Amino acid sequence: MSASAAKVISSEPLPHGEAVWTKLVRKTYRDPNGVERTWESAERTTRPKDCDIDGVGIVAILEKDTGPEIVLQKQYRPPVDKICIELPAGLVDEGETAEQAAIRELREETGYVAQVLETSPVMFNDPGFCNTNLRMVHVSVDMSLPENQNLQPELEENEFIEVFLVKLADLWEECVRLEAEGYAIDARIANLGEGIEMAKKFKL
Amino acid sequence: MSASAAKVISSEPLPHGEAVWTKLVRKTYRDPNGVERTWESAERTTRPKDCDIDGVGIVAILEKDTGPEIVLQKQYRPPVDKICIELPAGLVDEGETAEQAAIRELREETGYVAQVLETSPVMFNDPGFCNTNLRMVHVSVDMSLPENQNLQPELEENEFIEVFLVKLADLWEECVRLEAEGYAIDARIANLGEGIEMAKKFKL
Repeated sequence: MSASAAKVISSEPLPHGEAVWTKLVRKTYRDPNGVERTWESAERTTRPKDCDIDGVGIVAILEKDTGPEIVLQKQYRPPVDKICIELPAGLVDEGETAEQAAIRELREETGYVAQVLETSPVMFNDPGFCNTNLRMVHVSVDMSLPENQNLQPELEENEFIEVFLVKLADLWEECVRLEAEGYAIDARIANLGEGIEMAKKFKL
Repeated sequence: MSASAAKVISSEPLPHGEAVWTKLVRKTYRDPNGVERTWESAERTTRPKDCDIDGVGIVAILEKDTGPEIVLQKQYRPPVDKICIELPAGLVDEGETAEQAAIRELREETGYVAQVLETSPVMFNDPGFCNTNLRMVHVSVDMSLPENQNLQPELEENEFIEVFLVKLADLWEECVRLEAEGYAIDARIANLGEGIEMAKKFKL
């Protein structure tokens, strides 16, 4: 599988009433001074009822003798019309916890079988524009398990994902290098790498 | 100014043809196997022509004797209907570079006068859902300048921003604490904090 052939052919305004996965809403709100104003907001239509998140991002670390490595993906994304460098991630299904979604999505997308270490607060991707959000679920991958030696991802027929590993210490420089090669970089992963660089720079 | 009074009163599907700042598009694309498919994507309508980004996020560090501190903001965001913890940020104006936008937005939103240190690759906020993106601009703030001792933000009449400082080493724990207090956490800032914690944990 090579994702390099994927390409947007055309882009058109979504005709009225035909949006299935997305919607635009107008929020009428009272500002901090009590003045009534409106704001346009984009939303997913897929968030399960009574669930506080759309999806999860998965920070899967392999602790190797040569240092920790992070599981990343290359995935063609039509909104950007490029292959994106991303964390394993996915939407939460009805009735699932963030942790269950993370373990399921990681297994489906990468084949790795993992255990949850920690779940983050809710994070909003772009709160001036949309309400989409996620929790980051940090997991450990036990490399002695046979499933993790012989990966068996279960991709859907419209999913094209290439899994790769990056040394955690090199994450930022890999993002910069991959952008120069023509990939699009997801903010969640870039900001993790940026945080690592800041910790190094300021000796935190 | 207290943002605690701000609140969404109502939320309705945006009537056809009335979206000004946002749009939904249908992308027809060829997948990596050559199969033609469609994808819904949300976009901003405000990106300047010939510009590769919607906006900038600003990482402004104050180097103090007690350690580096980062400039953060509390801002009510109607899409989320909560006060968000965010980096200073803003949309790029026509003809502006990322660096110019960063210096302008930081001055307008916080009053700080800064110098650019480094600009990041383009980062996509949520590339399975939308094409919105930004560059992170890292700046230094010279605290010996009189402007930086007596801050004079220039907010627009619909902007309500409270500026505060957090020790960079405590960024993650502050995000967790502020979420517990009822604030919404922006992913860009949370992921920076998460990266700092990962660097500490793995001694990178």
